[in-house]
Amino acid sequence: MPLVAALDAVPGLRSVLGLFEGVCTGAADGYGRMAGKPALTLLHLGPGFANGIANLHNARRARTPIVNLIGDHATWHLAADAPLHSDIESLAAPVSSWLRRGDRAGDLGALVAEAIAAAAAPPGRIATLIVAHDAQLGQASAAAAPREIQPAPPASEKAIRAAAVALRRRRPTALFLGGEALGRRGLLAAARVAAASGCRLVCETSPARLERGAGLPAVARFPYFPEQGLAALAPFEALVLAGAQAPVAFFGYPGQPSRLIPPGCETSTLATADKDVPGALEALAEALAAPAAGETIKEQRPSRPAGALTPESLGAAIAAAQPDGAIIVDEGNTSSAAYFALAAGAPRHTYLALTGGAIGQGLPCAAGAAIASPGRRVIALQADGSGMYTLQALWTQAREGLDVTTVICANRSYRILGVEMARAGMKDLGPQARGLMSLSDPALDWVKLAGGMGVPGARVETAEALARELERAVAEPGPHLIEAAMAHG
Amino acid sequence: MPLVAALDAVPGLRSVLGLFEGVCTGAADGYGRMAGKPALTLLHLGPGFANGIANLHNARRARTPIVNLIGDHATWHLAADAPLHSDIESLAAPVSSWLRRGDRAGDLGALVAEAIAAAAAPPGRIATLIVAHDAQLGQASAAAAPREIQPAPPASEKAIRAAAVALRRRRPTALFLGGEALGRRGLLAAARVAAASGCRLVCETSPARLERGAGLPAVARFPYFPEQGLAALAPFEALVLAGAQAPVAFFGYPGQPSRLIPPGCETSTLATADKDVPGALEALAEALAAPAAGETIKEQRPSRPAGALTPESLGAAIAAAQPDGAIIVDEGNTSSAAYFALAAGAPRHTYLALTGGAIGQGLPCAAGAAIASPGRRVIALQADGSGMYTLQALWTQAREGLDVTTVICANRSYRILGVEMARAGMKDLGPQARGLMSLSDPALDWVKLAGGMGVPGARVETAEALARELERAVAEPGPHLIEAAMAHG
Repeated sequence: MPLVAALDAVPGLRSVLGLFEGVCTGAADGYGRMAGKPALTLLHLGPGFANGIANLHNARRARTPIVNLIGDHATWHLAADAPLHSDIESLAAPVSSWLRRGDRAGDLGALVAEAIAAAAAPPGRIATLIVAHDAQLGQASAAAAPREIQPAPPASEKAIRAAAVALRRRRPTALFLGGEALGRRGLLAAARVAAASGCRLVCETSPARLERGAGLPAVARFPYFPEQGLAALAPFEALVLAGAQAPVAFFGYPGQPSRLIPPGCETSTLATADKDVPGALEALAEALAAPAAGETIKEQRPSRPAGALTPESLGAAIAAAQPDGAIIVDEGNTSSAAYFALAAGAPRHTYLALTGGAIGQGLPCAAGAAIASPGRRVIALQADGSGMYTLQALWTQAREGLDVTTVICANRSYRILGVEMARAGMKDLGPQARGLMSLSDPALDWVKLAGGMGVPGARVETAEALARELERAVAEPGPHLIEAAMAHG
Repeated sequence: MPLVAALDAVPGLRSVLGLFEGVCTGAADGYGRMAGKPALTLLHLGPGFANGIANLHNARRARTPIVNLIGDHATWHLAADAPLHSDIESLAAPVSSWLRRGDRAGDLGALVAEAIAAAAAPPGRIATLIVAHDAQLGQASAAAAPREIQPAPPASEKAIRAAAVALRRRRPTALFLGGEALGRRGLLAAARVAAASGCRLVCETSPARLERGAGLPAVARFPYFPEQGLAALAPFEALVLAGAQAPVAFFGYPGQPSRLIPPGCETSTLATADKDVPGALEALAEALAAPAAGETIKEQRPSRPAGALTPESLGAAIAAAQPDGAIIVDEGNTSSAAYFALAAGAPRHTYLALTGGAIGQGLPCAAGAAIASPGRRVIALQADGSGMYTLQALWTQAREGLDVTTVICANRSYRILGVEMARAGMKDLGPQARGLMSLSDPALDWVKLAGGMGVPGARVETAEALARELERAVAEPGPHLIEAAMAHG
């Protein structure tokens, strides 16, 4: 309460209410990815923090800068083991790179400055400060001076020289891009490297933030399933990592490896994510005497699709309608699988993926991205099962008047579970198992759900209708929701 | 997936889908409180478990038996640090009294039997088993024999004698009841003790499960705020604890104590919650040569209220309409504060409170209580702000056709925060702080939200309309939702 009451004491703070902590942390993730600086979450004790953990997990994987302030009991009240008391440190440690407790008012200024610096230092991390109630009530010392944020250090000269030597051999080579390599500067440098060396550009399966579209180079996305990943890298004799970790399987499947680099493919690292990755790519381009510009994509959109709503027609409808400068938040899972390739030639846009696999990230992330990016249209491709995790985010979108168009990909099932069951050869499931994978009976009515939170909505059952509703929604300010009824459930 | 696929392998299992893990754990809490035996939750990796922590926190405070199975990566895949990997033990420890990892298929039978026994042993606790994917895929050994559950041991003879001596002195004494003391057997024994000694019966502020109504003794509820609690105990020279811990303040307020026992009030313990508390109360009644029955309440309901919806008229409407054998799940917070006293003479019913203060418990708990109690009507008194935390529970109520009547107490604010602000003397809040406490702009439409999940609903703005809708709802099978528009926001 003292922290809430203090929000008006300093001009320039903007408070945004989420009706569930997972909305707050997911929005902080979206904000941090787009703004490149931390949002602050204000959370209440262990259970309030716990509600935000899943989206902090995603943010940690995205290397998003976030500062969490957790209000705790007064120091003198902890021993009472009051009902809301719990072991906050144990809950916070798995998602916090920096974790401290502020028990005295006089320490808070310096601790908050330290938390902000810890979060904002490249490549970005999560800093959590637990603030005791008596410390909140006390008199803070003078505001601490902001800590200087050091830029990311350069990659080693040796690594750059080694990468240049490897690429000059002109073996079939993949330049595997992640983190800051996926910004405009990194991509344009990577395109120059590709022009000089003939290497192929590949990016992480689930990028935290990828700039793409017309005017930027073509980048293949590393596939999701391990056998597909191994096949994608099979043509290559060398793999050079730039801001990305060596690819591993999302899940471990019997008989398939964790590490997805084919035998005989030599792997080296140009720059890890904590280094100046765009600078390393530029230095590599220089070392290769690359041309001033590599190949980039010309604008080419799919035509407006027609017929039933499939992953292909849904992807085409989005790619055809997305305005220049759109921000695409993709938690469409199986339903949006075709979109990425179809949008390669769409006007310049930013693509935000589910980095940590913890579902329920899309709607909050879209809210945070919109807050960070006034004037840009956010389009959230949202699977229905995942969307139900944090549907409360729609209310925040309405309250803040955010320019978010949500497309609910309504297949009324946890389709990915069916895919995994089939992969594992588990067929002829019984009614108890089947019941856990179906979202029908009763069917969710997303137009009503959105309307209940102040977001206007429409349900569409064809690709034509989706295209029409999309064109209308992206042209009008504020949030809208379109429930896209996927064919075949 | 292998655990899901196996659900049909053994007859008699019933799977219930929650669209968010907080629904699953809250429903397991409601089930365990009513059934007295553990429900099993099936959760996915660290983030899936994390989504269920807040309601496990409540269940831990309620001493509800629950077994959590958390599916983890294959043992050989952990080192890859795949996107969904996290420190599950660190997340699970704060809410788990028993926490183990099952890495080999051959161990699972014995581990599950141990987990069930750990959870079910009186007074009930949470057992969490993390099961690696390769262990799930392997061949389990023969089913382990169920472990024998030992009943709660008796309280010490010495403690019973000491309590009898204290009560015979006939000083003003409060018998402070919690846990199993609040079941029918414990309460009837406590009434005999009161008849013999003149002591007053008081119960915990937030009982996990309290039997009450006509035919049971009057029990005062210990108040929420510390100054009220101290005042309530001020007349007493002695306090005897039976299944309850000594009362502490919910939050620590400057100038007020943590421990809420007035100076000079002698405190003793008849039986801690892990002992046979009803048996101890019966033994105490015998030691006092108490009559065979104490005083109990006669049925007396408030009359149907009229006028604006206030905590008083809302409480009267519920108490007037609740059918015999109702289960009342109370997360109405400030809006339901008057209900408890008004329902003292309602027909026999069961009252379930928010034990751990982690909001978002009511709707899931109501679902679990209904699953455990076919043929009984569940009435959930649900604050709107708290209800939004886990509104997905309405879908489970619809799918399972549960006899739950939800009354949303719609004051469109986090009213308790305003109360706390006023108590702390924080007035003249600015717009940033005020914005975090108001749920208006846009107003939530709970009838649409419920309809979107298959639950029929109605909005009422007067006490007469609430009474009418309640009478209709409790007479029809299946779930209903009534949005009660509280006067004065």
